[in-house]
Amino acid sequence: MNLVLLPKQVTQAKWSISDPRAVHILEVLKVGLGDEIDFAVENGPLGKGKLETLGDEFLELSFKWESLANKDFLPVCLLIGLSRPQTCRKILDQGSTMGVQEFHFFGTDRGEPSYASSPLWTTDEWKVRIRKGVEQAFSSFMPTCMLHQDLKSVLGNLTTKKKSLRIGLDNYEGTSRFGTDLLSPVETVELAVGAERGWSRQERNLLRENGFKLQHLGERVLRVETAVVAALGVLGAVS
Amino acid sequence: MNLVLLPKQVTQAKWSISDPRAVHILEVLKVGLGDEIDFAVENGPLGKGKLETLGDEFLELSFKWESLANKDFLPVCLLIGLSRPQTCRKILDQGSTMGVQEFHFFGTDRGEPSYASSPLWTTDEWKVRIRKGVEQAFSSFMPTCMLHQDLKSVLGNLTTKKKSLRIGLDNYEGTSRFGTDLLSPVETVELAVGAERGWSRQERNLLRENGFKLQHLGERVLRVETAVVAALGVLGAVS
Repeated sequence: MNLVLLPKQVTQAKWSISDPRAVHILEVLKVGLGDEIDFAVENGPLGKGKLETLGDEFLELSFKWESLANKDFLPVCLLIGLSRPQTCRKILDQGSTMGVQEFHFFGTDRGEPSYASSPLWTTDEWKVRIRKGVEQAFSSFMPTCMLHQDLKSVLGNLTTKKKSLRIGLDNYEGTSRFGTDLLSPVETVELAVGAERGWSRQERNLLRENGFKLQHLGERVLRVETAVVAALGVLGAVS
Repeated sequence: MNLVLLPKQVTQAKWSISDPRAVHILEVLKVGLGDEIDFAVENGPLGKGKLETLGDEFLELSFKWESLANKDFLPVCLLIGLSRPQTCRKILDQGSTMGVQEFHFFGTDRGEPSYASSPLWTTDEWKVRIRKGVEQAFSSFMPTCMLHQDLKSVLGNLTTKKKSLRIGLDNYEGTSRFGTDLLSPVETVELAVGAERGWSRQERNLLRENGFKLQHLGERVLRVETAVVAALGVLGAVS
């Protein structure tokens, strides 16, 4: 990452040399005294930070901020069945980079309930991953992320949008190829992606009852994280 | 993977219990005596294998093969600037799963020459990754993969196709969005993806002289492996 996100818009900052951001700036970006690098404020403007002083214990930075840009999300709300933590990490990393607006993870009938007690979810790791994904994209807008009990509670939590397109990815019962009906502009795509072992019959019915069209990404069997990135690539190309 | 690829079409096999395929079948897939699981022959038919005997040292399988299916590749030849081995691993894994037909990796002006001496390339690891990617997809057709000195030698090695579309992904000098001109059917897309640090001026010129149109995937800065999967997603949706 060559962009560093700050939680608040400040004009100056003093960080300990051991602060992870200081370590990143000095050791990875090799910033020297007087050098300027890219910063942004979470959900705020992009800007430049200048290394003003560099001592044995602290460094000091000054910041200049641009005017706030428009939100650059993809119009996508992602519903993802809880998969192995390693899979969810890749989805958070890459989905945040690609511009997902909302992540909703949920327990599935065929998934392992224990996945929800991974350090990914019980510590701040998920937030850190989202922030790094946004930094990688050179953006500042942070997607939201919620963990739900099951598909039913996600569906109850979705804010209703006027022109949303609801699609559920399904290798087995998908009736058309994902991407074929995306030509007209939509406000949001609510994209549901099953867990590693696929949807149960109940979950498929729940999706259909809630207006989700089941579609597939072709014959080849993709890992969940690959399917997510491939589908977001398609949405990016048409949005 | 629930499909196991064999190098040759045989009707029976006797494997040591410590053979990685035997370990996979017994410990991951939990196959018992008399059970049938999915097999395929590299570049050959899909079929079923039945566990006929299970001893202390060996197991024996019998196979039934279907007729050979059509090749299910995406019409894509991928040209990728050598990036960190960890990045190339993800590209091999996911590109093989998604159906890339040819991989051409090459040294770039801004890349590290040392990347080519990673165990990924000096051992059979790259072949194993490709095979596992194909198994994941439930396919049997193996993409080819070559490592080249530089972009010039890749371009000299490409077999000329009548209707190929040449596209180079480029965040900086891409003049249109990737995916916008993919509606007419093409024989092959030759897709060049830069290394982590981007193309040099010489490489950009070489691409343009060889008929590559420079396109981008939007404003957000993606990792190389994310860009590859997103672009393959788009190609899959239109092919």
